[in-house]
Amino acid sequence: MALIGKLVVCGVGLIGGSFALALREAGAVGRIVGIGRTSAALERARELGVIDEVAEDWAGALDGADFVLLAAPVGQLEGIMAAMAPHLQAGTVVTDAGSTKRDVIEAAYRHLDAHLPYVVPAHPIAGAEKSGVEAAFATLYRDRKVVLTPLPENEATAVELVRAAWTACGATVVDMAPQDHDRVFAAVSHLPHLLAFGLVHDLAGRANAELLFSHAASGFRDFTRIAGSHPEMWRDICIANRQALLGELDQYLAELAYLRALLMAGDGKRLEQLFDEAQHARNAWAAQFVPTSTAE
Amino acid sequence: MALIGKLVVCGVGLIGGSFALALREAGAVGRIVGIGRTSAALERARELGVIDEVAEDWAGALDGADFVLLAAPVGQLEGIMAAMAPHLQAGTVVTDAGSTKRDVIEAAYRHLDAHLPYVVPAHPIAGAEKSGVEAAFATLYRDRKVVLTPLPENEATAVELVRAAWTACGATVVDMAPQDHDRVFAAVSHLPHLLAFGLVHDLAGRANAELLFSHAASGFRDFTRIAGSHPEMWRDICIANRQALLGELDQYLAELAYLRALLMAGDGKRLEQLFDEAQHARNAWAAQFVPTSTAE
Repeated sequence: MALIGKLVVCGVGLIGGSFALALREAGAVGRIVGIGRTSAALERARELGVIDEVAEDWAGALDGADFVLLAAPVGQLEGIMAAMAPHLQAGTVVTDAGSTKRDVIEAAYRHLDAHLPYVVPAHPIAGAEKSGVEAAFATLYRDRKVVLTPLPENEATAVELVRAAWTACGATVVDMAPQDHDRVFAAVSHLPHLLAFGLVHDLAGRANAELLFSHAASGFRDFTRIAGSHPEMWRDICIANRQALLGELDQYLAELAYLRALLMAGDGKRLEQLFDEAQHARNAWAAQFVPTSTAE
Repeated sequence: MALIGKLVVCGVGLIGGSFALALREAGAVGRIVGIGRTSAALERARELGVIDEVAEDWAGALDGADFVLLAAPVGQLEGIMAAMAPHLQAGTVVTDAGSTKRDVIEAAYRHLDAHLPYVVPAHPIAGAEKSGVEAAFATLYRDRKVVLTPLPENEATAVELVRAAWTACGATVVDMAPQDHDRVFAAVSHLPHLLAFGLVHDLAGRANAELLFSHAASGFRDFTRIAGSHPEMWRDICIANRQALLGELDQYLAELAYLRALLMAGDGKRLEQLFDEAQHARNAWAAQFVPTSTAE
């Protein structure tokens, strides 16, 4: 018997679509139903075989559902939870793929209060700068981390089912407190995205933008890869996690102020020392970091 | 007959070593002599077949030399020019691989004044986060750009020889004014390096650095790849080009101040618009950018 009989994926894009493909490839799922705001995208997902059927509404989608993955941008999750709440059946496990966790949990407390034992917040640390169901692939989560931030109210069986589903996708599951999650990812993911978007936006607005871009090389390509990410998704993440992100941005601005002072003073010695420490830390990290494809 | 009879490479690391390997593979060079500050590195370059012999001093190196490539960090070029000047023979073409051009040109005016017709400043837009002769490879410059910033004093034959040498390495050669070069690369290369070094340095100094790095993913890997670059080389570039770099840093700080204001105000609409513009600019650029390996 499959791990999950009826799976509902809300938002069948890169993240939701890859989850569906991975579970199907693992033989871990029976029927896959898609739901979302864009019917054309859902139709395309069905044509591609990523989902088996498109749900008309939440009543139909949740009828007999074992497992629901909410894979829409985090800014939509509150509205989605409000819409699905009246139709949730007892025991259906609900999880999400949001890159922020405190805001998703707050929304769950507001709208899924009666269902909290079965609502298990999660964040798969994977993705790509391409979005949409066309970009989905079954191995996206292989050897990637998925962070669970279980609620005190959770039933152990619900947490274990979410853990088992992501494990079936090839991921490694770790648990964190939601506030730790949001602070850590503000630093290592949300801030770098903001910085990359900012640099490209700055340069693209210059009178000599064409000249600048024509001389940009591979260092620029890699530094700005994440500026190719989904604008709406990253707007939602930045807004949802803005408190932690502002803290990280301010700490980074202090670092830049220090670098600026070293440049002003022409202090090559301290500048080299700082670069050297960064180089060592970066190379030590990269030496034990293993993933294969482009991802966030 | 080879394009260059006797080639002298000063600083046989990734850049100088790859130039030597590329010219040899193209059959464009007779004998290759290495000179530099670290005899062990030069010996290693000879063992690897990157150079044919190690010069004892500038007198020996420059005796009968047709072409000299200065591939040391830009901070060393002034001292190198002063040391080589007394031994330069008439007609030996001298070029460099420095990532900044105005400072190199100023040093040339100070120390190679009598030889200016044959001093052709250049900057190959290639490299990698690995450095040293062990990292050198013959195809590093294939399909890459090399920027020449010829001097008004240059003999046309000298400029043409430098152009022909880089073309033989597989590169595309373009000409620019030195001040344009330094401004453009401050924006698309030097600033991103500074930002990446700064972010890694900031995070590495935190009490919870280990936790942070353990959750960093592929977006972080690509964003920080250039923080693995050579600290001394980048110290020299930042100091040599600090005027233009400070201008770029200040413009970027204004961009970050704007982003910070949008976050503070929770202005998702403007944030998404900015991300969207960045995404379009980045993807349009990436679509027509072609190089293969990691490089700067």
